Amino acid sequence: MLPQSSESRLKELKDIDRRITRMARIKAILEWDQETNLPPSGVEERAEQLAALEGLLHELRTQPLLGPLTAELAEATLPSAEDRALVERHQREYLRSSKLTKDFVERRARLIGVAQPAWALARREADFSQFLPYLEKIVELERETADRVGYATHPYDALLDVYEPLTTTQDVREIFAELEKGIVELVQTIRTRPQVDSAFLYRRYPKEMQEATVREILPKLGFDTKAGRLDTTTHPFCTTLGSKDVRITTRWDEKFFNPAFFGVIHETGHALYEQGFDPKLAESSLASGTSLGIHESQSRFWENIVGRSRAFVDHVFPLLRRHFPEALSNVDAETFFRGINRVEPSFIRVEADEVTYSLHILLRFRLETALLDGSLAPADVPGAWNDLSEKLFGLRPSNDAEGCLQDIHWAMGGLGYFPTYALGNLY
Amino acid sequence: MLPQSSESRLKELKDIDRRITRMARIKAILEWDQETNLPPSGVEERAEQLAALEGLLHELRTQPLLGPLTAELAEATLPSAEDRALVERHQREYLRSSKLTKDFVERRARLIGVAQPAWALARREADFSQFLPYLEKIVELERETADRVGYATHPYDALLDVYEPLTTTQDVREIFAELEKGIVELVQTIRTRPQVDSAFLYRRYPKEMQEATVREILPKLGFDTKAGRLDTTTHPFCTTLGSKDVRITTRWDEKFFNPAFFGVIHETGHALYEQGFDPKLAESSLASGTSLGIHESQSRFWENIVGRSRAFVDHVFPLLRRHFPEALSNVDAETFFRGINRVEPSFIRVEADEVTYSLHILLRFRLETALLDGSLAPADVPGAWNDLSEKLFGLRPSNDAEGCLQDIHWAMGGLGYFPTYALGNLY
Repeated sequence: MLPQSSESRLKELKDIDRRITRMARIKAILEWDQETNLPPSGVEERAEQLAALEGLLHELRTQPLLGPLTAELAEATLPSAEDRALVERHQREYLRSSKLTKDFVERRARLIGVAQPAWALARREADFSQFLPYLEKIVELERETADRVGYATHPYDALLDVYEPLTTTQDVREIFAELEKGIVELVQTIRTRPQVDSAFLYRRYPKEMQEATVREILPKLGFDTKAGRLDTTTHPFCTTLGSKDVRITTRWDEKFFNPAFFGVIHETGHALYEQGFDPKLAESSLASGTSLGIHESQSRFWENIVGRSRAFVDHVFPLLRRHFPEALSNVDAETFFRGINRVEPSFIRVEADEVTYSLHILLRFRLETALLDGSLAPADVPGAWNDLSEKLFGLRPSNDAEGCLQDIHWAMGGLGYFPTYALGNLY
Repeated sequence: MLPQSSESRLKELKDIDRRITRMARIKAILEWDQETNLPPSGVEERAEQLAALEGLLHELRTQPLLGPLTAELAEATLPSAEDRALVERHQREYLRSSKLTKDFVERRARLIGVAQPAWALARREADFSQFLPYLEKIVELERETADRVGYATHPYDALLDVYEPLTTTQDVREIFAELEKGIVELVQTIRTRPQVDSAFLYRRYPKEMQEATVREILPKLGFDTKAGRLDTTTHPFCTTLGSKDVRITTRWDEKFFNPAFFGVIHETGHALYEQGFDPKLAESSLASGTSLGIHESQSRFWENIVGRSRAFVDHVFPLLRRHFPEALSNVDAETFFRGINRVEPSFIRVEADEVTYSLHILLRFRLETALLDGSLAPADVPGAWNDLSEKLFGLRPSNDAEGCLQDIHWAMGGLGYFPTYALGNLY
């Protein structure tokens, strides 16, 4: 039995945690709507609304009460592992947030609120110069974050820690060095062998049938359609608006089978993790997972280990033949299975094969750390990206849309996030 | 010139007003999403999120500072009519809100958060008994509101005042008595004349073509599609998520032309009012209109005075013929114009003709005031509704879906709202 005092102190923490989680999800509703529905002229006021919520969240996370409360509970050796995790999470969060000011987090929210639509436009027009002023301000703010939060060796440590707690830049560097060596060797070996045929993946796949396909597959994967939904966005994602309201998005490419199909399976991996938490954690911050790397391990597992497996192909191939009679007319399950597992360096990360995928992460990690320590200026990103792409993949992007503008994460202020994808592959 | 002190006090009020407006619109985003997107299992947590925002709004509206601030500014005889309106609005709002507690407004928000989906289900199944427990709690809470807020003569005064400030139940009663007399006489006269043909309105109007039609008409009416959108819901509405993000919704009926067409024109009337505010009032609470009655006057004006006019029909009829070649094959503009203006008592308010429309409001007003003063029990609503329907229209609903369950407003806690529709017809 826990002493009465710890019991009631724990309840206090859980009440605060519930209020914080609720507010974070309200913010997620605004962000989801921003990506799926927001009319173009609504961008600036939405950024102000998000900034207001970020300010409120900051107030909740740094309420002075939390310092002594979490310190006291950390000393109390609680019997439940869940309770200990909750205390640790809030103690870390409190210490970190207390080093930032409300004004700072609001400024940051306002910036990324307008940076995302600016990125979407720049990407559409394949013109980095439109996004540069935003990237400059974002890098500046993230360096300020690192300075305020503090770090042992590299300013990037302070960002990485949000997504992969207790992991340092040096840890990632070492893992990635080993990974690069292994992947490069593997790719070279693969190159010496006859290449499999995947031309059929680039035939015409009508959007309506793609949608019918994934909507039929979703429940088969275990996605609860009464507690979630699927929508369309420029950049696919999964977000949790409530423990019983987990939403995924995808984009449709009528000339390429993979993006929507494997994209949806990937996001469903995230969604299954979110829908799978113990209902008693419904409005708890613990119901967001251990780390983003672990989260990605779930999505990458479903996308690659399940989605690209022979057994899964055997199961869904009849359904695919039914929906795409023309594109798959002379394709059998074996050919399909080999085609979706073809390994070949390419430009777009989210469409990359399982082997070369981590090289995309490596590239971004090197640029991000260089941006953070000042050895790379934002204006030089396109050149540096293209050089590194040539070195790692033997491919030079012909424009910024298939190069440095392909991902939304920097526009979201998500520097430090990318490594979790590669870590997710390894977990 | 305003004295320096009033100038800076006014700035204080405007800052508070901006924060309140922003939070109210964040709440509107959650409500819009609730009606358009929310997965069924997400209902309860969404109600908690709405309650949390309602609690925050209550805190903002009742911050002690606002009492002396608005009182002082009310004395200061400000030269700008806008500034005076802002002060008056907040003074009234502060006095009203201060009589309610945060706990009470949260409780109310939580209740209507779950009552709306319950109403939607009850309506689908035409089963009032499923909605009864919610209606009982809502009436109880609204009576408590009236008791807390206070009123001169009738508890309903306290609710009406939110939507139509400074108007009393007695005012409405007198207006409606006169209105009833006039309408009943007019309907009797119309009955003695040969009826116009409107059978063509009940042919098949494919949903996709209805949608194409209204999307083509929206910009013609002046709706800015970059600063708003159109979506589908069970009960049509217009809501403002930002001064440049005004959203309308509609429902589609393939067997009846009117609901989507005139419904969209009606909601566009609301939207034009919202999109038309001076941009300098972008995040001000003044940018929500003078009263709900005035708001309805705009939507009813566009729906009836414009939308059912001969000039408008002449303008849109070629477009309608293009989209509905079969349904309108042997119909000309004159027949169409007469058909959409046919007067005939019917069950559904939102589909009623211009003449009998206000009788629907009268019916609801009588039931609402009776619920509030206790002379009608919620359980007796279906019977009372049907009796009154028979008396006013000569029609008895065959089930609750075409009777007392047809509107969402009670489930939204919107008792006191209905009279504004009839007042809107009169302004």
